[in-house]
Amino acid sequence: MPEGFTKVSEDAHRSKDAIMQNPYGPNPADFLSNVSSFQLIESTLREGEQFANAFFSTEKKIEIAKALDEFGVDYIELTSPVASEQSRKDCEAICKLGLKAKILTHIRCHMDDARVAVETGVDGVDVVIGTSQFLRQYSHGKDMNYIAQSAVEVIEFVKSKGIEIRFSSEDSFRSDLVDLLNIYKTVDKIGVNRVGIADTVGCANPRQVYELVRTLKSVVSCDIECHFHNDTGCAIANAYTALEGGAKLIDVSVLGIGERNGITPLGGLMSRMIAADRDYVLSKYKLHKLRDLENLVAEAVQVNIPFNNPITGFCAFTHKAGIHAKAILANPSTYEILSPSDFGLTRYIHFANRLTGWNAIKSRVDQLNLHLTDEQCKEVTNKIKKLGDVRKLNIDDVDSIIKDFHADLSVPGSPMPANGSSPETKKQKTH
Amino acid sequence: MPEGFTKVSEDAHRSKDAIMQNPYGPNPADFLSNVSSFQLIESTLREGEQFANAFFSTEKKIEIAKALDEFGVDYIELTSPVASEQSRKDCEAICKLGLKAKILTHIRCHMDDARVAVETGVDGVDVVIGTSQFLRQYSHGKDMNYIAQSAVEVIEFVKSKGIEIRFSSEDSFRSDLVDLLNIYKTVDKIGVNRVGIADTVGCANPRQVYELVRTLKSVVSCDIECHFHNDTGCAIANAYTALEGGAKLIDVSVLGIGERNGITPLGGLMSRMIAADRDYVLSKYKLHKLRDLENLVAEAVQVNIPFNNPITGFCAFTHKAGIHAKAILANPSTYEILSPSDFGLTRYIHFANRLTGWNAIKSRVDQLNLHLTDEQCKEVTNKIKKLGDVRKLNIDDVDSIIKDFHADLSVPGSPMPANGSSPETKKQKTH
Repeated sequence: MPEGFTKVSEDAHRSKDAIMQNPYGPNPADFLSNVSSFQLIESTLREGEQFANAFFSTEKKIEIAKALDEFGVDYIELTSPVASEQSRKDCEAICKLGLKAKILTHIRCHMDDARVAVETGVDGVDVVIGTSQFLRQYSHGKDMNYIAQSAVEVIEFVKSKGIEIRFSSEDSFRSDLVDLLNIYKTVDKIGVNRVGIADTVGCANPRQVYELVRTLKSVVSCDIECHFHNDTGCAIANAYTALEGGAKLIDVSVLGIGERNGITPLGGLMSRMIAADRDYVLSKYKLHKLRDLENLVAEAVQVNIPFNNPITGFCAFTHKAGIHAKAILANPSTYEILSPSDFGLTRYIHFANRLTGWNAIKSRVDQLNLHLTDEQCKEVTNKIKKLGDVRKLNIDDVDSIIKDFHADLSVPGSPMPANGSSPETKKQKTH
Repeated sequence: MPEGFTKVSEDAHRSKDAIMQNPYGPNPADFLSNVSSFQLIESTLREGEQFANAFFSTEKKIEIAKALDEFGVDYIELTSPVASEQSRKDCEAICKLGLKAKILTHIRCHMDDARVAVETGVDGVDVVIGTSQFLRQYSHGKDMNYIAQSAVEVIEFVKSKGIEIRFSSEDSFRSDLVDLLNIYKTVDKIGVNRVGIADTVGCANPRQVYELVRTLKSVVSCDIECHFHNDTGCAIANAYTALEGGAKLIDVSVLGIGERNGITPLGGLMSRMIAADRDYVLSKYKLHKLRDLENLVAEAVQVNIPFNNPITGFCAFTHKAGIHAKAILANPSTYEILSPSDFGLTRYIHFANRLTGWNAIKSRVDQLNLHLTDEQCKEVTNKIKKLGDVRKLNIDDVDSIIKDFHADLSVPGSPMPANGSSPETKKQKTH
């Protein structure tokens, strides 16, 4: 525990009711919303392998796959078996683990890739092809007719093997809407299991996402999966809004690792979803395992957990300003939409600083088993704020000031402190 | 530069047109949108001071205020002068700097605080009071009538001093809508400069934000300011959606530092806004100073820049997978919505890994001033992928493989390489 902080125990005021009263969960008017029935496609072992720092050995991949499975993700997506020889072997090895999560692999929309993928033992294949003008011109150079033909061939082949198949466009938000809807309608008709929307460059914003998903929902009958990059910081919000619009599955990775600065992070999405439907999230996912899972992956790719990470950032449940501390002590729901105990974590009040208030100090006085009146607490708080103006404080600084103040009350001429410590106490302390 | 990466120079393909073609900027149908006319209220020296790790000396505050001013923020918000004696002195000192940015201080909705605030020399005062049932019950214990009376008294007092005044509710998204609209209408009538919506607990999601801002916009004629905490990862998206709905000002802090895991980050919001209206953002804010500004604050509060930070995260412009690298080499806009050069930063292709493709390797071959055919590049790429299956690679590994491959082509019986290096070259190298 960092210096200058104190743990705050769970409070009886924190109850399910406090969260249920929040009118800002899923909107009951959104009949298409899957906010309370979403699924996770966990892509740390595919998108995450595209993170600059990632090199996963076979053993590490298996360790991560097992940890994801224990957390409760619905699908685990793996790097294409044609990326390299070892990628194919690792894919086969993970398929043989017998995990509860379904195993997917992610390939280009090519028969060459599909023929290899269906032999690995996966439960499903995710195919992707660029549909934006940018990608059609500078990546594969194909037109929409060619894309549709390839898609139909690959989908029918994969389905013939009794394996799930998803078709996704790439860079969907910079693709022509009519082209997109045409190809989604085509693949839906031949029985694709899911269609995917991908914000490959991280340009989408929530209202666009909502509109595109709602429109697509009116065109296809299969499930909709969404994949959001985080270049402009909207990957969590876009995922949430996609679910509101009728998408069913969200691609995530641990800490969001992926190309560039990554995609929707698993933990961040959990923070958003638990605020919307706590019961559903708690029923499906083992949130207490989140921190260990993040630490496992962070260590594997040699990064630190960001200081401001949702849920597991070191200060995610730390309250500092006086008015915040006061209200949190009375009822944590005043300044918390998430309950740290849902994640096996703890709340802190940071009272050793110049922004502190007398309510936080009074709480510390009580913890020290001392007794001061409210007026006395206000007085000692002023002393603490004065020192906090001069330098950074830690708990010991504050405790010394409180104890000295308390002891001074015991000398002759001062009112006796309520716990009855005598002038001798002061003497013993100062000598 | 980390190992295994290569810089990629700016490409002629990258042009303003490439961004302008993006149909997913501000929606022209949104007449109320301020996406192209927003302002920033920078709160590193107020909200940021409530970050667990923050202790800013007077000198550090002045250094940060000057850096924010040079960056071009519209307002700088400071801690309440009643928080502590030094807080008041620092506020006065910053007001005397003669910055272009307007200086604000942030106080409770009390006459006691207002009387001190107006004497500091600030250009404006931001007042806030909790309006949610939670805060009314567990924080100040006042009813809406009392809140309205206090607000009117404080606003009229501050206005009488010729100083800007903002009135904000706190925890707005868990407040009663009718209560909220009532009080905003009241303060608008008496001439408040701005009203504020605050997602104090970080519970709001984008569509709620849009609806509340649109509704409020129909009730008040003054500007609307928004403040979003990031507990559920939506602070950037909520800010953007608020601007779409007609809000004009967004509260930000450097790296988002603030209570718990903070608020909308300055850099993250810049990434979102430049994708929407590059000309406006470049005309107002000195984006080349972003990295230094973030480093200044990160050092002051002893945190690291998160690995996945928008724009300045170490891998924000690093491309890895083979198909990404290929397209980026042809035209960076294929996989980038942001141009690193706008921020004085550089793009990298990570080619030293098993996911690499022959286009990235061919680019490296060219950089090494060697000459290989496409077929030869594919062959050497396979060698690189094989080694990449076994361990993490760095640039030297890849360069050695390429150079050895190239040299082997020069031995008798192999076709002569195009650059005409002779068998002697090989000999010299191996001896």
